Amino acid sequence: MVGQRYVKMLSCHPYFEVTALTGLSSVGKKYNEVVRSASEINAGSRFRRRREKQNTVGDLIVQPTRPEFLDVDLVFSPLPTEAARTLESRFAKRGLKVITDASPHRMEPDVPLIVPEVNPDHLSLIDWQRRSRGWGEGFLVATPNCTVAGLALVLKPLDELVGIRKAIVATLQALSGAGYPGVPSLDIVDNVIPYIKDEEEKVAQEALKILGTADNHGVHPSQMEVSAMCHRVATTDGHLESVYIETKESISLERVKEALRIFSGIPQKLRLPTAPTRPIIVTEADDRPQVRLDRDAGSVPGMGVTVGRIRKGLDSRSLRLTLLSHNTVRGAAGSTILTAELMESQGLLD
Amino acid sequence: MVGQRYVKMLSCHPYFEVTALTGLSSVGKKYNEVVRSASEINAGSRFRRRREKQNTVGDLIVQPTRPEFLDVDLVFSPLPTEAARTLESRFAKRGLKVITDASPHRMEPDVPLIVPEVNPDHLSLIDWQRRSRGWGEGFLVATPNCTVAGLALVLKPLDELVGIRKAIVATLQALSGAGYPGVPSLDIVDNVIPYIKDEEEKVAQEALKILGTADNHGVHPSQMEVSAMCHRVATTDGHLESVYIETKESISLERVKEALRIFSGIPQKLRLPTAPTRPIIVTEADDRPQVRLDRDAGSVPGMGVTVGRIRKGLDSRSLRLTLLSHNTVRGAAGSTILTAELMESQGLLD
Amino acid sequence: MVGQRYVKMLSCHPYFEVTALTGLSSVGKKYNEVVRSASEINAGSRFRRRREKQNTVGDLIVQPTRPEFLDVDLVFSPLPTEAARTLESRFAKRGLKVITDASPHRMEPDVPLIVPEVNPDHLSLIDWQRRSRGWGEGFLVATPNCTVAGLALVLKPLDELVGIRKAIVATLQALSGAGYPGVPSLDIVDNVIPYIKDEEEKVAQEALKILGTADNHGVHPSQMEVSAMCHRVATTDGHLESVYIETKESISLERVKEALRIFSGIPQKLRLPTAPTRPIIVTEADDRPQVRLDRDAGSVPGMGVTVGRIRKGLDSRSLRLTLLSHNTVRGAAGSTILTAELMESQGLLD
Amino acid sequence: MVGQRYVKMLSCHPYFEVTALTGLSSVGKKYNEVVRSASEINAGSRFRRRREKQNTVGDLIVQPTRPEFLDVDLVFSPLPTEAARTLESRFAKRGLKVITDASPHRMEPDVPLIVPEVNPDHLSLIDWQRRSRGWGEGFLVATPNCTVAGLALVLKPLDELVGIRKAIVATLQALSGAGYPGVPSLDIVDNVIPYIKDEEEKVAQEALKILGTADNHGVHPSQMEVSAMCHRVATTDGHLESVYIETKESISLERVKEALRIFSGIPQKLRLPTAPTRPIIVTEADDRPQVRLDRDAGSVPGMGVTVGRIRKGLDSRSLRLTLLSHNTVRGAAGSTILTAELMESQGLLD
Repeated sequence: MVGQRYVKMLSCHPYFEVTALTGLSSVGKKYNEVVRSASEINAGSRFRRRREKQNTVGDLIVQPTRPEFLDVDLVFSPLPTEAARTLESRFAKRGLKVITDASPHRMEPDVPLIVPEVNPDHLSLIDWQRRSRGWGEGFLVATPNCTVAGLALVLKPLDELVGIRKAIVATLQALSGAGYPGVPSLDIVDNVIPYIKDEEEKVAQEALKILGTADNHGVHPSQMEVSAMCHRVATTDGHLESVYIETKESISLERVKEALRIFSGIPQKLRLPTAPTRPIIVTEADDRPQVRLDRDAGSVPGMGVTVGRIRKGLDSRSLRLTLLSHNTVRGAAGSTILTAELMESQGLLD
Repeated sequence: MVGQRYVKMLSCHPYFEVTALTGLSSVGKKYNEVVRSASEINAGSRFRRRREKQNTVGDLIVQPTRPEFLDVDLVFSPLPTEAARTLESRFAKRGLKVITDASPHRMEPDVPLIVPEVNPDHLSLIDWQRRSRGWGEGFLVATPNCTVAGLALVLKPLDELVGIRKAIVATLQALSGAGYPGVPSLDIVDNVIPYIKDEEEKVAQEALKILGTADNHGVHPSQMEVSAMCHRVATTDGHLESVYIETKESISLERVKEALRIFSGIPQKLRLPTAPTRPIIVTEADDRPQVRLDRDAGSVPGMGVTVGRIRKGLDSRSLRLTLLSHNTVRGAAGSTILTAELMESQGLLD
Repeated sequence: MVGQRYVKMLSCHPYFEVTALTGLSSVGKKYNEVVRSASEINAGSRFRRRREKQNTVGDLIVQPTRPEFLDVDLVFSPLPTEAARTLESRFAKRGLKVITDASPHRMEPDVPLIVPEVNPDHLSLIDWQRRSRGWGEGFLVATPNCTVAGLALVLKPLDELVGIRKAIVATLQALSGAGYPGVPSLDIVDNVIPYIKDEEEKVAQEALKILGTADNHGVHPSQMEVSAMCHRVATTDGHLESVYIETKESISLERVKEALRIFSGIPQKLRLPTAPTRPIIVTEADDRPQVRLDRDAGSVPGMGVTVGRIRKGLDSRSLRLTLLSHNTVRGAAGSTILTAELMESQGLLD
Repeated sequence: MVGQRYVKMLSCHPYFEVTALTGLSSVGKKYNEVVRSASEINAGSRFRRRREKQNTVGDLIVQPTRPEFLDVDLVFSPLPTEAARTLESRFAKRGLKVITDASPHRMEPDVPLIVPEVNPDHLSLIDWQRRSRGWGEGFLVATPNCTVAGLALVLKPLDELVGIRKAIVATLQALSGAGYPGVPSLDIVDNVIPYIKDEEEKVAQEALKILGTADNHGVHPSQMEVSAMCHRVATTDGHLESVYIETKESISLERVKEALRIFSGIPQKLRLPTAPTRPIIVTEADDRPQVRLDRDAGSVPGMGVTVGRIRKGLDSRSLRLTLLSHNTVRGAAGSTILTAELMESQGLLD
């Protein structure tokens, strides 16, 4: 799912051009055929930056996911977990710049885990990573789990405003988060599955790393506490998350809404192509955000996170809210492309 | 939905016999025709206790919901909120015993709000209610909101074991909870609605009343705190609830599971007809309870609440769990019938 | 649903500008508020042609559906059936040009029933209608039922190629076809409803009128026979129809595909704004068209009808195929707007 | 799915007792564990007839699907197609009696393809099969495709009444028909797939064999013609089929309904345990049968086929109707068990 999203989002990109695609069972076929069959997972994608456009992605022959033969500058990797574990560092070792939304390397101390609006400064870890791993031009940068991408974005301005002590998150996650073929249909019609393997642990850990402070020796995680309860529901795209938050300071709901509304980061300042004008959209409607109605929110569709139902918790230092973010855009391909754009703007891809 | 559930659950009941049905737009029709059209809500049901069976509910003519003409001993009321507000007390005033799962009177200080395994002693409020209201033989007993019925059942043994300080509940509620026609299909296909009117307030208030202490002056609510975040999802029956719980004492997950497993109440002791052998079923499977697979759990189908995913919270005094209870059985008709059985066994229906 | 689709499709239209909106329970509110609540049906829309754009539809105050007060040139009517029956002719009588996708007047002999690529010549009935009804400048033009719009488009080139004797149609229709709130969610989760009131009759009758021949005395219906079996399924938008066709002449599947592929009409010749480059898209994939994947097909999204699974029937003079058309675009608002564009190009709106 | 249905339906069976289960990836595990994981397909089941009950199916260890080691009298086989093709005849060759609902052998001329109420006399092919194959005590009997089981049952009394010339069938088939994991959820949410591999061919061929005449040289297929258009929809269980039928004689709808209502066969005469009192249930409701409401119809739940919407076709020698049959009960396990009961009653299992 995410591989296809990459190709779509990069099809007319002003910075990057897709020049190579890799896969497993689809090797040797044209990308067009692989998409049509809808039963192939694109295991990896590689891109060369160029200004001049050639609309021929559909004709690219899918290659095996091996670094030896690829003539590219930058690798976008939505590899499945096990493949990512072994293959991604092989690419970086060969001098390739790798940006991944796979999970295996996210929590390694010298790997930046980036939400572009939240912790762009963590990219400074790249220097340390290169030195310590001896990878020359190559490096590995990660984007977070699809559930964390939206959550960290929303927690950041709240933490700055009132200091978050604790966040209890309940998620209602879309089917595309499990890839393809993913969840069997018989498991989800008229049903909810209150379990997604390893998801709750990832949400807790990754959020704290992203919201933490980076220096030369890695990331000092945020001191807040995050606990998650994750559910799979019968939606195609869009993760909905309801969060109970306890804060250090007293809360004014109006100031909370204002802080969310005006939040923006370097991607907005630089007007990066995949940066939405406003990363967070606050809705006052009683019954929003809703998955089907709001998942494509944002001036770049799917890059805007919608927050609604902002209301009091049990006391003056707690609040409840519901957020919705598109899991394969803001939660995967979109985040990674925006990270690449940010790095390009900082000269990190030269 | 609930009216039909009543008729079904009472169709071969050893204590009660349905002798009158009331409605609004279906008045004058046979119950059989109303059910077949599937577009009528049975606004009220009335029952006379008798030992000898006559299987003729289908032939009963639906009457208007007025107390004047009904020759019954006991009234089961699944009336819509506004109708319940005005009509239920009119029935009680006429000397009828009313057990309701409608919401308007639940929080009144002299109205017992009963989960039969949890707070059967609150039925003592009936004396005070009769005296203060001057209703003679008539009275009003309520059962809780469909979400609270399962929740209170699970919180009770936990509170006794480790003392609950705080419960943060996220619910994924079924469509039948909204009645019929209820939620338009276009609102729920590939969607989640993070809002159910007044539901979060009811969950918080009613749980505390049920878990509180009754004396001659009403109910002292429990000192725990409960906060809810409610979502409507595309399931037909069965409310799933994930709960983050903070406790006074340290938790052993094994002792928690044991306490839930062995929990039982007076209905089990008396082997009441609608009492499941075990009110709480603990599952060790990673991915259970699931709505479609577990909603009919229990030796009386739908009366057993399944609890799973019992796991640590952020520290030794917190835990997370997921529970599932059938919203129109344990959460409505089943609870009310079990309450009536309990009252019958205590001579309160004589 | 259709009213909102109109507003969306006309929001940047080169010929027409929305200058008035009418409704029932939403009267007096701004259109923006009505849309947000998502519980209002826009009962009628009125438009004045202008070149210069003012993007203020959201600020229009919804008015009552009465002809007296509206200063417009052209009325697009997606009124509910009963309202359309009485109101539409009142508008025409006042001299307004009315294009409707409501059903009551479709089969009247002097009312053109138009699929713009199929029978644009039927617009000649307008003269006769004006004379016989004495409506001055006003008239009534209809577009067909949402199921017929796609069906007639596909039958037309087949009829020309091999002569259709009989078409047996089975439909799988989307929820939006029933309007809002329409089908209750409890009726459609894990379910199919094999009945849509009056739909099978409409499909049979309207198809024959559209594919018939118009002269000064009305329409001589096509001599083919059409029979329909209609089903409601749990999809949001997009009607899928599988058709068994018996023909006068022997069939070559390749020639059938070719005839469908190259079919086009006056709207394509004139490059009308809402005309898709190709009205029919033929797919060779085994398992297409699929509702979610193909409903937005066409260079104007939703205006292209996808045909697939073209295969033999029981003998050489029969074939089977499956088609998909977007029910609120090609089947309603899109068809009507395209009809208006066609009429504008022919001077019929002056 | 079907394997589990067998175990359930045979758990208290008066004739048969499950004494062996076989599988592939589940070999060596207890059946209970396999069911719980819900990710295993039970590849084959074997049963020994006994009067005395031992409820220990859950404790049976799943064995490999090889005939050598099994001490059973009768084999029920819901094997996947490819496994069935090679394994089933190996079992029969070893002298085992095999009743299969897998597809590979259904159309072989000496294999009876049985719908117990429709063509019990086709069991006479067993003699010929044994002689020609030299299998001694062993033999192979098949039951039809899940779509054909209900269809053939309904066509039989109609054919006897008015002579069927042609049946055009459109199916809306449930997800469980594709086994587990089967259809990926992302393929079916808000979608319909108008293609099921090989299904349309099976429906046409198998119906004609079942409705044909058996003699010593095989089966002379029925002279009627059947053509199918098959669709997968988002329902869990229950295949809905709408049929357009052309007949030799003029039709009275009342006589058609009567013929369907009173239809019964040897299984009803013998009151076999899995035979429903009435194999066909005729409904007069406009909007029935519906999948969720009617799939468990019948005095043996799921063995009754519901027929509704019986209405005229294009002329007096055609009609339309909709039928619903439970695909894993009437369409698989139930049919096969009923066939075994029939054979037992005829001494064919001795």
